[in-house]
Amino acid sequence: MQLLQYHRSFAATCLRLVRYASTAASRNASFAALEDTDTNFFRDVLGDSNVITDIDALQPLNEDWMGKYSGKSKLALRPKSTEQVSKVLAYCNDRHLAIVPQGGNTGLVGGSIPLFDEVILLTAGLNQVISFDAVSGTLVCQAGCILEHLDNQVGAQGFTMPLDLGAKGSCQIGGNVSTNAGGLRLLRYGSLHGSVLGIEAVLADGTVVDTLQTLRKDNTGYDLKQLFIGSEGTLGVVTAVSLLCPPRPSAVHVCYLAVPDFATTQKVFVRARQKLGEILSAFEFFDQQALDLTLKHLEGVRNPLPDTQTPFYLVVETSGSNEAHDSEKLQGFLEEVMEEGMVLDGTIAQDSTQIAGIWGIREGISVALKHAGPVYKYDLSIPVAEMYSLVEETRHRMAGLPVEVVGYGHLGDGNLHLNVSCQRYDEEILKHIEPFVYEWTAARKGSISAEHGLGQMKADCIGYTKPQPVVQLMTQVKQAFDPKGILNPYKVLPQVMAVAQ
Amino acid sequence: MQLLQYHRSFAATCLRLVRYASTAASRNASFAALEDTDTNFFRDVLGDSNVITDIDALQPLNEDWMGKYSGKSKLALRPKSTEQVSKVLAYCNDRHLAIVPQGGNTGLVGGSIPLFDEVILLTAGLNQVISFDAVSGTLVCQAGCILEHLDNQVGAQGFTMPLDLGAKGSCQIGGNVSTNAGGLRLLRYGSLHGSVLGIEAVLADGTVVDTLQTLRKDNTGYDLKQLFIGSEGTLGVVTAVSLLCPPRPSAVHVCYLAVPDFATTQKVFVRARQKLGEILSAFEFFDQQALDLTLKHLEGVRNPLPDTQTPFYLVVETSGSNEAHDSEKLQGFLEEVMEEGMVLDGTIAQDSTQIAGIWGIREGISVALKHAGPVYKYDLSIPVAEMYSLVEETRHRMAGLPVEVVGYGHLGDGNLHLNVSCQRYDEEILKHIEPFVYEWTAARKGSISAEHGLGQMKADCIGYTKPQPVVQLMTQVKQAFDPKGILNPYKVLPQVMAVAQ
Repeated sequence: MQLLQYHRSFAATCLRLVRYASTAASRNASFAALEDTDTNFFRDVLGDSNVITDIDALQPLNEDWMGKYSGKSKLALRPKSTEQVSKVLAYCNDRHLAIVPQGGNTGLVGGSIPLFDEVILLTAGLNQVISFDAVSGTLVCQAGCILEHLDNQVGAQGFTMPLDLGAKGSCQIGGNVSTNAGGLRLLRYGSLHGSVLGIEAVLADGTVVDTLQTLRKDNTGYDLKQLFIGSEGTLGVVTAVSLLCPPRPSAVHVCYLAVPDFATTQKVFVRARQKLGEILSAFEFFDQQALDLTLKHLEGVRNPLPDTQTPFYLVVETSGSNEAHDSEKLQGFLEEVMEEGMVLDGTIAQDSTQIAGIWGIREGISVALKHAGPVYKYDLSIPVAEMYSLVEETRHRMAGLPVEVVGYGHLGDGNLHLNVSCQRYDEEILKHIEPFVYEWTAARKGSISAEHGLGQMKADCIGYTKPQPVVQLMTQVKQAFDPKGILNPYKVLPQVMAVAQ
Repeated sequence: MQLLQYHRSFAATCLRLVRYASTAASRNASFAALEDTDTNFFRDVLGDSNVITDIDALQPLNEDWMGKYSGKSKLALRPKSTEQVSKVLAYCNDRHLAIVPQGGNTGLVGGSIPLFDEVILLTAGLNQVISFDAVSGTLVCQAGCILEHLDNQVGAQGFTMPLDLGAKGSCQIGGNVSTNAGGLRLLRYGSLHGSVLGIEAVLADGTVVDTLQTLRKDNTGYDLKQLFIGSEGTLGVVTAVSLLCPPRPSAVHVCYLAVPDFATTQKVFVRARQKLGEILSAFEFFDQQALDLTLKHLEGVRNPLPDTQTPFYLVVETSGSNEAHDSEKLQGFLEEVMEEGMVLDGTIAQDSTQIAGIWGIREGISVALKHAGPVYKYDLSIPVAEMYSLVEETRHRMAGLPVEVVGYGHLGDGNLHLNVSCQRYDEEILKHIEPFVYEWTAARKGSISAEHGLGQMKADCIGYTKPQPVVQLMTQVKQAFDPKGILNPYKVLPQVMAVAQ
């Protein structure tokens, strides 16, 4: 209890100091301003076509896809090799030029967007597959490879990428690793901390840290690659990764279930784990509000159960190696949960088109929300039993305001996506959400970032989830890896602590 | 190629400087010698019964179970709480007293044995289960809990520990985590980097780093707990862990197969992955020499195929949720590999006694080797196709010497255990093995420690697997976490680098 009070008081202090990193942080005066000689150096190293200074070309790189965060960078660089990244970083470190690495720019917390005039380092030019071993499923590739392209490539040889998410058509594997992306099948394949076998990263001073091995097991010293997973480009720029790809399941089944209340979704989950066991690969939920938004804003989305209105819907997926066995298991599960009244109505997708249709709803929620207008997005780990209470309490707090509160997420992982859709980003609306959402989560020992990361949105809120000695140790690690603090400044760690160093 | 040459030359330099950490390392003069006032302080903090100074009681703590490593510690401490660990470490840090954390003392590389007069910090007193959530399978417990006891406890509620190894009856979970233990079912449940949800550790200066959370997903800042996994107590003393336990499989099958040659073992593995898919939970191999040793030295071990003599044997295990489905899959697999001549003979265990009998052979190899006499043990990650060539080449190099060269291990993970059994530890015999084994492994980009760790045995050999900038960065991390170097000195990192700091 004492610890919790401490967390809350620490976090409250941070919030008082800097409510919004994106608006309140001030430019670190120790960073140099860009000069023509710098740009000329980069042209020499990278060639003219990979040095972007045109304002129109810079505009989409200075802004996130939600239109929530924006910076004023005057320069973006597109290196094509680790060696070029090393040269660029060594130069920036000498010159005290701040750097923001940017992959597919699909993040939700402003992690790859500059706050001021930081140089944008694009990883898109690092887009080569280095090797794939079709016996072990080990993929080695550069950081700028797009997730969906990789999945297609390994898929052709009977394997699948160990993660999948809505942004797969744009997001890059380097960004996935740097943000420890979770996604739809973490339940089955675990986190990237388990799947990534090796990383090549470049430190702020240009040192190449090469742990790009393909061994499933290696206990020689500290597992430094783990520090690059999820550190959002603040410790080094990930330039290549090796990953263990699981065999592609030959049998995939998806069912769509209508459930009367949130307590029942958990009972269905427990039953799914019992009956489906090792073939359960996704267990996702969304509320009626999310479904309505998606049906309204996305074209081509069909309601699989048009005659059923209920507060909660589930998408349950199995992935296995035996079509007949898996089908029998899923049928048995569905019969049980329907007979016992846990599920009001349900349907099993009959072919790949229907599977895509059901997943289209779940994956489309985020896009539909964007179509509906500005969104305050929260991504929380909360004990499953209490997860939806936060949506209800938020809805209650905001009754009468012109907002729509929507809840969905990865129920199997205890990960809620709470979204508040509104007409415009508005400080008055925000006051109803923050710090309430963070305090509510901290009181339940949850995490204020399950999978999105902290970025600039929550850099000053880390204290809600991590105690001060842990944050202090993180700051020491940052100091050891990037003494001048040029890599992705104003992100992840609280500015108050970084400045105090 | 250049990189490889560099690795080899770096490693060779280390070897020239310090062939054997255990014999050639000299006591770091910066460490204080124990005084009576120190012992009195520890008695005040821990109580008399938890301060061990009796020579006979210290003897087994000063020596590893193989009788290969020994130290001269005059003091062992048995704290019962994290607070006590914190007080002990803060005191030792102030006094410059070196510390060796010791769990079940089942390690194979001298990682928990003092070299000189380091104080032994026993974790056995930290033996409480803190909580278990029977819905999510999340276990929180202190570091000194014994693996097998934990498995029994979570097993009673339908879950299983995510790792299993031969030493389960003695090894402690804190030691498992600190050494990133692999074991028999890594193939199925992945490494501890994926299963461990949180760690509580005490730094050298007594700071308690508390990330002991139970969330499946948390992306708030750097994942520092990962650094304590596999760092062998050199960055902090792990005092408690939280782990995700998978549901206990309701159907377990084991088969024992005789295979004509090593190339065929790999073909059988590929087929097992295809046919058994998600229920494959172990794929282990051993050679005829290993079998013979086990039958000779262990009582009660029965040869499951007494009429078949062949160079290689496999233990294949499935774990699933549907008895009928799993049995059908395994039967189908076995019929195929026997019809196609990959497997000369095979048997499926019919009950739990037969299952235990087959596992008893595989798990008994290490114990049988100990009964046979002194053993030089190597634990290597090598591309599977080349794995057994190392055993053959080593056997060839040592032809005529009074040794037995034995190969076994986790084929599914590419992890070979190469063992040279002899009459006594002998520098002449060793010359035939080292640096040959390390150079051979480095030439194939393997790891010189797949799962055992580096300890004192291989602290100076890290360069065979990790490039110099990576080792340098590890040294910086060590400096940040333990500036005075009191935690488990002479282990993991090369002394030449540690001294150079």
